[in-house]
Amino acid sequence: MERLPGFRDFYPEPLPKPDLWSADARQYIFDKWRGMARRYSFREYDGPPLEPLELFTTKSGEEIVGQLYNFKDKGEREISLRPEMTPTLARMVASYERSYKKPLKWFSLPQLFRYERQQKGRLREHFQLNADIVGESDPGADAELIALLIDILRSFGLTEKDFVLRLSSRNAWQEFYRQRQCDGAQEYAFYQIIDKLEREAPELSDEKLTGMGFSLGEVSSFIEQGQPTAELEAILTNLAARGLSDYVKIDYHVIRGLAYYTGVVFEAFDRQGEFRAIAGGGRYDNLVKLISGGSVDLPALGFGMGDVVLFEFIKARGLLPRFDAALDAFCLIENAELRNESLRLIQDLRAAGLVVDYSLAPAKSDKQFKRAQELKAVHTIKLERRQAGELLAKIKHLQTREETVVPAAEAIERLRQRSSQR
Amino acid sequence: MERLPGFRDFYPEPLPKPDLWSADARQYIFDKWRGMARRYSFREYDGPPLEPLELFTTKSGEEIVGQLYNFKDKGEREISLRPEMTPTLARMVASYERSYKKPLKWFSLPQLFRYERQQKGRLREHFQLNADIVGESDPGADAELIALLIDILRSFGLTEKDFVLRLSSRNAWQEFYRQRQCDGAQEYAFYQIIDKLEREAPELSDEKLTGMGFSLGEVSSFIEQGQPTAELEAILTNLAARGLSDYVKIDYHVIRGLAYYTGVVFEAFDRQGEFRAIAGGGRYDNLVKLISGGSVDLPALGFGMGDVVLFEFIKARGLLPRFDAALDAFCLIENAELRNESLRLIQDLRAAGLVVDYSLAPAKSDKQFKRAQELKAVHTIKLERRQAGELLAKIKHLQTREETVVPAAEAIERLRQRSSQR
Repeated sequence: MERLPGFRDFYPEPLPKPDLWSADARQYIFDKWRGMARRYSFREYDGPPLEPLELFTTKSGEEIVGQLYNFKDKGEREISLRPEMTPTLARMVASYERSYKKPLKWFSLPQLFRYERQQKGRLREHFQLNADIVGESDPGADAELIALLIDILRSFGLTEKDFVLRLSSRNAWQEFYRQRQCDGAQEYAFYQIIDKLEREAPELSDEKLTGMGFSLGEVSSFIEQGQPTAELEAILTNLAARGLSDYVKIDYHVIRGLAYYTGVVFEAFDRQGEFRAIAGGGRYDNLVKLISGGSVDLPALGFGMGDVVLFEFIKARGLLPRFDAALDAFCLIENAELRNESLRLIQDLRAAGLVVDYSLAPAKSDKQFKRAQELKAVHTIKLERRQAGELLAKIKHLQTREETVVPAAEAIERLRQRSSQR
Repeated sequence: MERLPGFRDFYPEPLPKPDLWSADARQYIFDKWRGMARRYSFREYDGPPLEPLELFTTKSGEEIVGQLYNFKDKGEREISLRPEMTPTLARMVASYERSYKKPLKWFSLPQLFRYERQQKGRLREHFQLNADIVGESDPGADAELIALLIDILRSFGLTEKDFVLRLSSRNAWQEFYRQRQCDGAQEYAFYQIIDKLEREAPELSDEKLTGMGFSLGEVSSFIEQGQPTAELEAILTNLAARGLSDYVKIDYHVIRGLAYYTGVVFEAFDRQGEFRAIAGGGRYDNLVKLISGGSVDLPALGFGMGDVVLFEFIKARGLLPRFDAALDAFCLIENAELRNESLRLIQDLRAAGLVVDYSLAPAKSDKQFKRAQELKAVHTIKLERRQAGELLAKIKHLQTREETVVPAAEAIERLRQRSSQR
């Protein structure tokens, strides 16, 4: 029986086939995400993977339904697997808005689902770090969020030579638009053209823009000049103070496709241009109000960073570590009479925090030793009874082949020392 | 807008209302699960939360569909959210059976979904630790798995006074049945009666048993005698060697409802009898063969432990820790001229691994200090410029009120020392 197309199994390393997904690599990414978000004093939250369909259509309109895993449950409710986290965040914040002091700095690691047309290698689910700040309109919040994004990518070993954050502003584009056009109805359509500028033929873009009373020339020159707004200026100054200037640049090509952004928007890109955007986000000061039906009005901003592009990116840059089982010791039970003593030793070693394995069933010595090697154990440990009755533990380091023999009672302390030295 | 009934939001601590679910408590449970499973040399895996419906009906029959979140996707596939993890594990193992050396020791922390009739407080999703050993028929594997279950519960601070593992055997019941009945067709129905024995009126059980040619008397006396099979004997000896005897007892009341168990079965119970089973599992030597359509035949055993009962249990025993933000320092920016230097300090403190927060927007001194207290910061840190131009850092411990003033350049090292002392 096969798994569904577009979904992933995550296997333990070493992987049977190189194109399988690694559960260890996934956990490595999650640990980095969680670790840096916490250092920035972000707190974790989560919501259900299933939500009322209305939560997503309220935010994104009925068009989104075509991309959803939506269905009717046995209670006739219209429900959907979540395609993004922001509506859930807005719902959660609106429910207990008064109980939390603002600003909130929250993060989550949801799995998200989209029913996309089947293309080779195109996935229908991914995990995404979502980090958001709610209740602060000062650009200092934008700078803090962007600094977090940069430091997360740096925590994987990526540098300013690997990626750059392109910083833009819906406000700047709004001013550009409104100075030239009084028909507000076309504004979002105009943003959509800007969003496609880098992917579409210039003639097509020019035609569309001309139809709205603009020209590709004036749009291009606005982008090229790239004059930062006061808000962007404040963010750049803030990031410079942190020593992060080399990781950002103003780039008005970026405008973000989604309708609900209201201020600063940004995307993180691979400098070599091999990959799709690694992360993206911005301000959405009206969304909490929209989702709460008007009862709660809070400024907010956030970004999302998916696990798939990030994984491919750090892998391509040679930054993915090797994932071994980190087995501190494999206990060899060669003398059946010492099985009970060996089990006790294994129990005590684990109680001391060490990772320990052994042959669950009686097996020949060479088979046990082979198993220790397969599992890449750092040490083997073996009990032996001396003629005088004394119980000894023989500890062997499999790489250096160095052997130590100590009284069994001292084995735990000895192994613990050795393991903490690594 | 409300979340769906039977689903949970997970909020950061401190919780606005005591009956909300805590994201910090969830992470605490996950960390304990993952930590102990790794010490036992179990490796993590995961599969998709959506699977072909057939995967679950193959294992459990069509009856299970009534309890599933199943639907047809936009490609007309019959799919379902996973109600349990074992079929996915069997599917994954069968796919790459040859690439992994046996026995496999694997664990996962899936979220599982069941469409149960709405009852007050009854959830439709939960998280569950699944730990399984595949490819070993020796009772040493059963003992290892049971020891892991016990050590996980102990890692929460629970002792032999809090819980006990009731150990039983499908083999023992099979022998009991077959000695008295040749009609194998009734065998599973008989197990179902045994499974309900403790919850049903004795008269009803007796009536049902009599209808099958048994009597409640002989069944009860078989349970009371509780003679361990050779297999159970081996497991008890193994656990005794580990010093875990006080955590287990033979109890033939336990038989487990599911059809597919083939040997040892067990359930972990609260000694005070307040809660439903905390965990349960057993051997299922035929399931991999069934799921793989006969192509792969491996003995296997495993257990599941849900987060909901466990959480209620450790909470009731007073073993749930307090979850603070663990904020090492809150940086006070009282002098606007030192904002840039302060941002640099915050950046450096975080780069050194410390958890640091500050007021994102300029704010009055007392408001900043109040925020530091709300967030339960361990220290405040504040830059000051001396007249001679020297930059100093004033570090204050908020509990002891102890203050230290050091050159700004030494602040990081000083705070790091203090934080590692905690």
